[in-house]
Amino acid sequence: MFESAELGHKIDKKTFHEEVDKLREDLLEAQFELRKRGEFQVFVLISGMDGAGKGETLNDLYSWMDARYLSACAFAAPTGEEAAHPFMWRFWRELPPKGRIGIFSGSWYSTPIHRRIIGEIDNAFLDQRIYQINRFEEMLANEGALILKFWLYLTKEGQKKRFRTLEKDPRTAWRVTKEDWNGLKTYDKLQKVASHMLRMTNTSAAPWIVVESTDDRYRSLTVGKLILDALQKRLTDRKKREYPSAPPVSPRTDSLDVLNTLDLDKSLEREDYELRLAGAQGRLYELVRLPEFKKHSLILAFEGSDAAGKGGSIRRLAAALDARQYQIMPISAPTQEELAQPYLWRFWRHVPKKGRIAIFDRSWYGRVLVERVEGFCAEDDWLRAYTEINDFEYELMADGAIILKFWLQISADEQLKRFREREETTFKRYKITDEDWRNREKWDAYHQAVCDMVDRTSTGQIPWTLVEANDKKFARVKVLETVCARLEDVLRKH
Amino acid sequence: MFESAELGHKIDKKTFHEEVDKLREDLLEAQFELRKRGEFQVFVLISGMDGAGKGETLNDLYSWMDARYLSACAFAAPTGEEAAHPFMWRFWRELPPKGRIGIFSGSWYSTPIHRRIIGEIDNAFLDQRIYQINRFEEMLANEGALILKFWLYLTKEGQKKRFRTLEKDPRTAWRVTKEDWNGLKTYDKLQKVASHMLRMTNTSAAPWIVVESTDDRYRSLTVGKLILDALQKRLTDRKKREYPSAPPVSPRTDSLDVLNTLDLDKSLEREDYELRLAGAQGRLYELVRLPEFKKHSLILAFEGSDAAGKGGSIRRLAAALDARQYQIMPISAPTQEELAQPYLWRFWRHVPKKGRIAIFDRSWYGRVLVERVEGFCAEDDWLRAYTEINDFEYELMADGAIILKFWLQISADEQLKRFREREETTFKRYKITDEDWRNREKWDAYHQAVCDMVDRTSTGQIPWTLVEANDKKFARVKVLETVCARLEDVLRKH
Repeated sequence: MFESAELGHKIDKKTFHEEVDKLREDLLEAQFELRKRGEFQVFVLISGMDGAGKGETLNDLYSWMDARYLSACAFAAPTGEEAAHPFMWRFWRELPPKGRIGIFSGSWYSTPIHRRIIGEIDNAFLDQRIYQINRFEEMLANEGALILKFWLYLTKEGQKKRFRTLEKDPRTAWRVTKEDWNGLKTYDKLQKVASHMLRMTNTSAAPWIVVESTDDRYRSLTVGKLILDALQKRLTDRKKREYPSAPPVSPRTDSLDVLNTLDLDKSLEREDYELRLAGAQGRLYELVRLPEFKKHSLILAFEGSDAAGKGGSIRRLAAALDARQYQIMPISAPTQEELAQPYLWRFWRHVPKKGRIAIFDRSWYGRVLVERVEGFCAEDDWLRAYTEINDFEYELMADGAIILKFWLQISADEQLKRFREREETTFKRYKITDEDWRNREKWDAYHQAVCDMVDRTSTGQIPWTLVEANDKKFARVKVLETVCARLEDVLRKH
Repeated sequence: MFESAELGHKIDKKTFHEEVDKLREDLLEAQFELRKRGEFQVFVLISGMDGAGKGETLNDLYSWMDARYLSACAFAAPTGEEAAHPFMWRFWRELPPKGRIGIFSGSWYSTPIHRRIIGEIDNAFLDQRIYQINRFEEMLANEGALILKFWLYLTKEGQKKRFRTLEKDPRTAWRVTKEDWNGLKTYDKLQKVASHMLRMTNTSAAPWIVVESTDDRYRSLTVGKLILDALQKRLTDRKKREYPSAPPVSPRTDSLDVLNTLDLDKSLEREDYELRLAGAQGRLYELVRLPEFKKHSLILAFEGSDAAGKGGSIRRLAAALDARQYQIMPISAPTQEELAQPYLWRFWRHVPKKGRIAIFDRSWYGRVLVERVEGFCAEDDWLRAYTEINDFEYELMADGAIILKFWLQISADEQLKRFREREETTFKRYKITDEDWRNREKWDAYHQAVCDMVDRTSTGQIPWTLVEANDKKFARVKVLETVCARLEDVLRKH
């Protein structure tokens, strides 16, 4: 992979200045077009060896393009806030929105490479990170992002020479630190880890581009030109390709499914309800105050048909919590800002840190429910979402999150009854809209989407809880008791 | 994932017979159409628990469809021959060609699951296998294959009940073995490993379909119908989708590249040549006879422009080998049989077992050379081939193969001289065709393709060796000495 970057590439001053003038003009134009269209975002990763000019490249790009529409994303060691969240959280926070170019100096590659070099993690752990990174970048590419990963490369001899040259010139001497000279000792280690990492993450959607960096002018011009080429190509040349249809998701041999086998008549007497509700609230109150809970976070996702009683369940649950500890996130149609990002972005934003609780009133499952049924995204998109959602939840869980997902199911008759009731009650009238009536017409399509969702995303460690919700009292108690049982199960293991 | 398969699905006899008659007719028709068109192959994986009816399902499918165009691929513990090859080798051997349906009872999933349950491998190793499997299935899907993975599922109680029912009936009692009853003890372990494996390999290109298997009729009908649906859908419904163009591959800022920086004037005097050639041949003769070599295999790939001298180098190399130990594979345009398979299939066939040597005169790199330049495959296809080829070689290497790749480079003038010489020499005239002259016109396109190939596939552990070949003597000696040096390097480590 590095052969082309060991040839002694060099650009003389004159050629450089001639070419850069034209390049800047074209870059600005392409950037303007990108912004105007707002169809996709660009990731530029500047990685590589110390002394190879990562910072300079970033600065060149900033001076050549319109800095207002660039995002510089520099990542060093994680801050306290960042360390309290899953590995990918801080990168999700800084994703450039569609129409913008994000320039990453330090990225999701830096920490794994560094930790492998100092021996903090082994090869198997590194490979798991690599796997995670590949899925992440694949998701970005599927969402339309253009990903350019640059590896600025120096030979060992080249690195030494470069440090010496920089030190000689008083204008650049400050750029060479003691750590740089120490880094030379680990050159071979870095080279070995980087080769492996680059080989494994060199996918067709997000390939690595290795750039020789002995000559400043060559390096900058090369990076700039490649960004320009890629931008221009992507802005003009969109190819149509025939794609095979997707394999089926779930069997439909008979009429039994996870929803219509629920016994919706389950109910609780008032007295029983109040007793059990209070009991569960008391347990919950204590559980989230246990010291062990500080190593975890709690994420609750509520889905269900309109008027199924999500809000009521959430209120009973929140009543047992300290307002400083939890946050309820009502999810409705995405904002402009959210539409300019991959669909999971708006949920990553709200991933709670350790010791805290996030309650989602509707969730990331909108992708495979409303977006699927209403045709807001293509079949390919919601089909890959099952995998992406599983990966997302698994990542949170691996970081200590306790995740529960509730589907509240009511019968069509019960829904009708509740809709009418809402229309007749003044203070509830705002809760029923034309859209609710329209959704009701798609009852069967939603039914199918829910069954598929449960089949594809109810996993051993993060299962769905289906809640029989015709009786609100029964539903609320089932939700609360399920949360308590899971918390006890996880926290007891400590 | 298993909720839908715990509902007690059942089909009564009457419904079953009515539905099966129609199903058989439709399946035969779809199978006929599949065969007639010959555009893609179908993988049906029948996996799941013991006693869940894997064998019966296979037999049902055989009786319903035209068995002449089915391939049953049953994999038990690897045979000696199979164990002497890399993990995936035996599956590659049995891939159904386009137009056929391969039914896999036991597949690439069986061994990893089994080995994890008995504790022979740990989770990290399992995850590496999973990663490998995902890339393999992704490649198949990209090549157009339809992949249906069935997991026949029983609850623990269901499995017990089923064994008892089968035992009671004298017609089926033989189907329950002592191992089956023993297997019950590992039910929970299997369930845990399988959940993880299924979740991780549940991709949108090759999703798992979980089928409840307490009722024979339900299970068979469900599998049959899903195969039919998927086949019909794939045969009719091909979607066009706009796809973004690919990111760039290599910098082209200046005119330096790995080929034009070669010093093609390098040459050897006759005397020197004969001495070094004989010396290297002697070393090679001894090296491949070392007992340590039995743990390895040697794979040599030769690429180069027409008339670059691949044949001559190979002959000098083979002269040092025992004919029983090596095989030369000349690779030209693929046969009909090879065209009906993923492009790597023809190379997997010839992967040598341990202790043996395979010499490829042209190789799998045709995908990113001739197929790219001549437009025999789409841009997407050759772009993903870099990753697929790296994976392929890495897999062979992980199994002990020593892989060397040679690119023999001559100048355009030297090629012209050799072409003319061939035309003038009677016994060499067959070696020069109109196609050679046509290829010559594409010199620049090939040049670019070779540079990209080296950039993307020359990895730390499996690098390309670029050979200056204007002087045949120099080239031959460089090839032989490089092979010897690598062999010494690897074998000395023992």
